[in-house]
Amino acid sequence: MISVSEAIRLIKKHAIHSNSGEVPLLDALGCVAAESILALTDTPPFDNSAMDGYAFSYEHWDKTSPLKIVGEIQAGTKSDYTLKTQEASRIFTGAPVPEGADTVVMQEKTDRKENLLIITDPNIQANLNIRPQGSQTKQGDLALSKDQLITPATISYLAGMGLDKIKVYKKPTVGIILTGKELIKPGQTLEKGKIYESNGIGLQAALRNLHIETASILTVDDKEEELVNAIKKMMYFDILILTGGVSVGEYDLVPAALEQCGVKKVFHKIKQKPGKPIYFGVHSKGIVFGLPGNPAAVMSSFYYYIQTAIGLFMKRDLVKKIELPLDKEYTKRPGLTYFLNGKTTQTGVEILSSQLSYMLNSFAVADCLVELEEDKEFFEKGTLVDVLKFI
Amino acid sequence: MISVSEAIRLIKKHAIHSNSGEVPLLDALGCVAAESILALTDTPPFDNSAMDGYAFSYEHWDKTSPLKIVGEIQAGTKSDYTLKTQEASRIFTGAPVPEGADTVVMQEKTDRKENLLIITDPNIQANLNIRPQGSQTKQGDLALSKDQLITPATISYLAGMGLDKIKVYKKPTVGIILTGKELIKPGQTLEKGKIYESNGIGLQAALRNLHIETASILTVDDKEEELVNAIKKMMYFDILILTGGVSVGEYDLVPAALEQCGVKKVFHKIKQKPGKPIYFGVHSKGIVFGLPGNPAAVMSSFYYYIQTAIGLFMKRDLVKKIELPLDKEYTKRPGLTYFLNGKTTQTGVEILSSQLSYMLNSFAVADCLVELEEDKEFFEKGTLVDVLKFI
Repeated sequence: MISVSEAIRLIKKHAIHSNSGEVPLLDALGCVAAESILALTDTPPFDNSAMDGYAFSYEHWDKTSPLKIVGEIQAGTKSDYTLKTQEASRIFTGAPVPEGADTVVMQEKTDRKENLLIITDPNIQANLNIRPQGSQTKQGDLALSKDQLITPATISYLAGMGLDKIKVYKKPTVGIILTGKELIKPGQTLEKGKIYESNGIGLQAALRNLHIETASILTVDDKEEELVNAIKKMMYFDILILTGGVSVGEYDLVPAALEQCGVKKVFHKIKQKPGKPIYFGVHSKGIVFGLPGNPAAVMSSFYYYIQTAIGLFMKRDLVKKIELPLDKEYTKRPGLTYFLNGKTTQTGVEILSSQLSYMLNSFAVADCLVELEEDKEFFEKGTLVDVLKFI
Repeated sequence: MISVSEAIRLIKKHAIHSNSGEVPLLDALGCVAAESILALTDTPPFDNSAMDGYAFSYEHWDKTSPLKIVGEIQAGTKSDYTLKTQEASRIFTGAPVPEGADTVVMQEKTDRKENLLIITDPNIQANLNIRPQGSQTKQGDLALSKDQLITPATISYLAGMGLDKIKVYKKPTVGIILTGKELIKPGQTLEKGKIYESNGIGLQAALRNLHIETASILTVDDKEEELVNAIKKMMYFDILILTGGVSVGEYDLVPAALEQCGVKKVFHKIKQKPGKPIYFGVHSKGIVFGLPGNPAAVMSSFYYYIQTAIGLFMKRDLVKKIELPLDKEYTKRPGLTYFLNGKTTQTGVEILSSQLSYMLNSFAVADCLVELEEDKEFFEKGTLVDVLKFI
């Protein structure tokens, strides 16, 4: 049995399968750029007006006479003329500044008499109200650095430069195998001996929060042949998650079945509660987590271990712990790290009751997991503890 | 022109269109329960074993003799016998405890000789290693309170009780209309006068972070008839977002077109930078935001105003500000609230450069928005400012 920190270390050592590839821009949300991007064009691509007003040459203007209005340029159109001295053109926000003009005057600071324009702005000066070509980014400039996290604003920015795809570290593909003769689907009638399967949908939801849709979920009986077939079918996933059958009982067939399929065990069992029997293994195409069947253990294993692995694929740190003071004292058994359901409060964090590993009610209302270190037994009120907020 | 806080107040006053309805359990992720849920069954639904071991009646055992093993119960099966005095049954984790048994002894704490079982556990006591029926939730108990946020663990918990759908406050439907003759799609060649459309995909990405997929995005020219037709087509959305055409110029047709379609203006223009010309209106079926065309203004308007409205539909507070100290002093114009791109640091928050409203580069690397209050001009290093972290 290993410690939680050793388990994390081993996952970090073995889970590095980062794979980069081009994806449609929108699907890059939450990913990290796998390439630096040089601007393909200047942005803005042409000098354009920042206002609705009139474009003219300040340099060649005599600073007193009215200007003659010779045309109009709307955003999305362009002028086919060059402004001469003492000429002006009506122009709208975003429209390209015509040849011969160096300045735009706001319409509110003019007086127009038919085709004559009187500039009434006492503070008018050269280059006013023009967004110069390339003032945001010049062609060939570094537009985005490798390893930049792609947010909605990053996506908008890249689209504005004309990009419709980008090379990122890809999200891992995830497959799930649920083991157990006792599992039936929610919505069906419950026969004695059976329980409703709930780990699959819990994992699906947690993955959806990371924008990972689970392509495939299989439910198998506790029979070795069936299990081996399911594993073989699912070994093309970057991450394969199994629930149940991972302890040491007669029907805990998962570790042996995985070995039979060529998965190499990295560790089995962690000094923690819940989720002690967790298994982690690797094979040539991916990694495998064998989780206990207990729903609470499944959820905390996901947040700590599977998110760590997903983050390694995506080159992101998805497990962001914060430190908060305990609202009440707490006593636990030494020798095991505890992962307890918590609720953040105005002053710190509260540990919720009913923490048995098969019980999820406190999990259902929790907004975080509280991690209590292995060696310690008594935690005073106010002790700073590691907290992992749910996303 | 109104203040930011007045704008928020007006949105909160007018945006309350919460609509509850039943959704498949997985789609309830991130929603708030619109009903209290009473448990349909006991959970666990039957007394079951917490261990691989042997079930027997501690009460009727003579505490010394070996027990006779009469059967085996695997998880997912049930026994068809009642254990008599001095009898035991092999049992596995999760399997129903047979009639006549009150205790399970761990297999590690026994010695088996063919059909005879010797209990070697000196600490054995009644009721050990049994998860009693209803110990998590009893039929009819309050299983989940109205207004509870649905996390992945909540979903797992509800599925475990046999639920496959739940009544929640529904996410609003969102439609987007992009206005401007100058807009072309990323991936196409850029003619002079045109720019790449980037607001649509930026908004789509920001909505996707809230698990809202945008059903419909229209791009229309700055022509009144075309715009009115598009608005009419899109008025069945709970929230309609338009970008561009919202200032006071000749081609800023959005406010007038909305009025023509029966939208009642609530406000137009906020004392802020960027995004001053923002419009907000209501109609019988939903609400409408008219945003400027500037990408940076679109993104900050989304995070502050549109998220506020979405949160009202979903009965969630999606705009979670925190207070952080400024890493460097900053001077702004008084009379406008500033929304500036920021990056959180170890010590506080840094304001990123290039904050002109048509420039997104700093937005592309920002991880938060910094809000600088309207009346103030000079912000010392260390001043606590409101920060909205991107999600």
